[in-house]
Amino acid sequence: MEQVVSKATDISEKVCEWRPPEQLKQLLDLELRDTGEPHHRLLELCQDVIRYSVKTNHPRFFNQLYAGLDYYSLVARFMTEALNPSVYTYEVSPVFLLVEEAVLKKMIEFIGWKEGDGIFNPGGSVSNMYAMNLARYKYCPDIKEKGLSGLPRLILFTSAECHYSMKKAASFLGIGTENVCFVETDGRGKMMPEELERQIWQARKEGAAPFLVCATSGTTVLGAFDPLDEIADVCERHGLWLHVDASWGGSALMSRKYRRLLHGIHRADSVAWNPHKMLMAGIQCCALLVKDKSDILKKCYSAKASYLFQQDKFYDVSYDTGDKSIQCSRRPDAFKFWMTWKALGTVGLEERVNRALALSRYLVEEIKKREGFKLLMEVAPAIKERMMKKGSLMLGYQPHRGKVNFFRQVVISPQVSREDMDFLLDEIDLLGRDM
Amino acid sequence: MEQVVSKATDISEKVCEWRPPEQLKQLLDLELRDTGEPHHRLLELCQDVIRYSVKTNHPRFFNQLYAGLDYYSLVARFMTEALNPSVYTYEVSPVFLLVEEAVLKKMIEFIGWKEGDGIFNPGGSVSNMYAMNLARYKYCPDIKEKGLSGLPRLILFTSAECHYSMKKAASFLGIGTENVCFVETDGRGKMMPEELERQIWQARKEGAAPFLVCATSGTTVLGAFDPLDEIADVCERHGLWLHVDASWGGSALMSRKYRRLLHGIHRADSVAWNPHKMLMAGIQCCALLVKDKSDILKKCYSAKASYLFQQDKFYDVSYDTGDKSIQCSRRPDAFKFWMTWKALGTVGLEERVNRALALSRYLVEEIKKREGFKLLMEVAPAIKERMMKKGSLMLGYQPHRGKVNFFRQVVISPQVSREDMDFLLDEIDLLGRDM
Repeated sequence: MEQVVSKATDISEKVCEWRPPEQLKQLLDLELRDTGEPHHRLLELCQDVIRYSVKTNHPRFFNQLYAGLDYYSLVARFMTEALNPSVYTYEVSPVFLLVEEAVLKKMIEFIGWKEGDGIFNPGGSVSNMYAMNLARYKYCPDIKEKGLSGLPRLILFTSAECHYSMKKAASFLGIGTENVCFVETDGRGKMMPEELERQIWQARKEGAAPFLVCATSGTTVLGAFDPLDEIADVCERHGLWLHVDASWGGSALMSRKYRRLLHGIHRADSVAWNPHKMLMAGIQCCALLVKDKSDILKKCYSAKASYLFQQDKFYDVSYDTGDKSIQCSRRPDAFKFWMTWKALGTVGLEERVNRALALSRYLVEEIKKREGFKLLMEVAPAIKERMMKKGSLMLGYQPHRGKVNFFRQVVISPQVSREDMDFLLDEIDLLGRDM
Repeated sequence: MEQVVSKATDISEKVCEWRPPEQLKQLLDLELRDTGEPHHRLLELCQDVIRYSVKTNHPRFFNQLYAGLDYYSLVARFMTEALNPSVYTYEVSPVFLLVEEAVLKKMIEFIGWKEGDGIFNPGGSVSNMYAMNLARYKYCPDIKEKGLSGLPRLILFTSAECHYSMKKAASFLGIGTENVCFVETDGRGKMMPEELERQIWQARKEGAAPFLVCATSGTTVLGAFDPLDEIADVCERHGLWLHVDASWGGSALMSRKYRRLLHGIHRADSVAWNPHKMLMAGIQCCALLVKDKSDILKKCYSAKASYLFQQDKFYDVSYDTGDKSIQCSRRPDAFKFWMTWKALGTVGLEERVNRALALSRYLVEEIKKREGFKLLMEVAPAIKERMMKKGSLMLGYQPHRGKVNFFRQVVISPQVSREDMDFLLDEIDLLGRDM
């Protein structure tokens, strides 16, 4: 624990101790044998696992849309790992079901709905799938029993900058990736509502059946926020379900200063929001929230297993939320977020969001001052390789439209400072100097 | 930790401290406020959470298909919670991806396949969904892009005793619950192969398109094992994908004495197997294993996100397994099972399985000796209520076909003894005596 929790956050230590796959296999003793290993050997194995694992709580881990370590959440996670609950019935998880209810209620309040429902899922991708299935259920409840065979071609609309889970969802749900219409975005990566409207008309003309629009609040590559209010107008006109994938950007709702980025979100029918990203709840912590209060989650998902959801129980079975889920066993993911929220209060969470966004701005200003930082050559993959091998920093890169591979800087953790921003620029500069 | 790990396993303590929902809400301070709570208050909250949570590691928690606490797995879980990895790319999770590969390889060996592939999922229900989607992909790869619209009615076959996730999967994947054919079982709860064959012919006659048979190894209520060899014969004759839901019973493969229960499993195309059940890896730890080695998981699931799965990386990107999954972020669930396996060896795991099955047999013999234990009256729900309020024991009940509600006893943990079996009978006897 000292190595993972303390040493890993020390900036004089490496973010990662890079080894290529074949070499790492040699270094670790991965093989599972007939007889067990003695305790001192197990301890060595644990140390090796820690040594060669990426320190995602290192202040210079900027590689993904999560980073840092919240100690309150970590305590909560230790507790739930030891208690090992499964959140499906009140009798097995009384506390964690009530905690989930309390957290969902508060998240619903921040979205701006008067009431609603929700469920925590293993990832934002799964939350997006839930939303797609709910929209389909709303469009035609018979699909639950009859399936899609013989129905007109269902079609959905999402930003060209949306998360790749929309395609995965369409494929998994039997809708087909070709029935995901990608709506053109502006120069900042925001969906253009007039383009959306045009594509809906076009689809109708072709005989397809539109049923869902997915807007994104915080796109994966550019961090763009779609104009929700205007998109909601289009959805209203066409009677379409509006889902907002706010997996990344939803946490801006905690900030009085930045919540305007999601203006109009209260008009959505469903929202995906991952506190494991900017609010550091630990992977996984992902809510799907639904405005409908007619128990649509249960109607759409229930399979009424008689061994689990007996109706003759001696308590109020409406707390047995397992039948709202595609899962059977489910982890108490709301609890770790609840603990952090309890510890910091809404104000403390707001400060974290504001701090991260202020640091991003600082970085932008610094980049403008630096020469050589509008990269026009294909150097990101080569700099990344040097960065990983040195272990000094982890930062993601990707291409985008006409642009070559570029670095995407993500700021989340309160352990990150201006010094880390400066280090980032210095380090990229240093690693790329001879190219 | 003392309260959760030590005190909770003390049989003189209660399994649960029962409170109905409204009363528990009063006892816990669940509300999330603007300002944070001081540390001493947080500690009190933690203690309350533990007090009112069910002790699933108590030797008398028999309520679900998981129980007990494995200390090696718990250490592994503490490590991964602190490291907070997401298992999608080698650069972020080098160790955990290699560990997953090693564990899957070994599980594939126990199934009896020469080679194969697999992935850990958030639950057996999700693994079953994966299998259904793979079978559909194999039947018609175009469905990934085109969807099900305009196709003939796809139909699948499973035991009348199967897990309810098959219906959930059919509904979620757009196939429809009415296209799940439930095949009649014998008196022991095993699927009857001749009935399966009859239903397949019947479906074809009606113009439906059979694509999948799901056999169950260890049904939820009766613990029945379908005759895999005979079912595989039927599948071969009809060219159908054979999936085995061994979420519960798969662990019997670890026992040389009991693996005959799954005779023929090597003929399956896919297998779901949850080490978080009988092998106590902690929720969630669920593998889907696939015989095909032509990279069908990646072909079926990939969405090729350019920001995550860049093809110009400096290492072998075949280790970036994230594109085999419906998830984006994914937990390192294989690691905790790996740690237990390392510590106990295959022989130690085998002993645990054998011990649990021997205790079940002991209980059966003792029930036969006891008067009043072939319950013919509807008393299980009432005894259950008394049991929960007393907190002495947790045991699941359900109806089954013509039978009234009855208790289902599940033995998993090595901390369970003959004394606990005797206590179970004494306690049910005691609680029901005046009925």
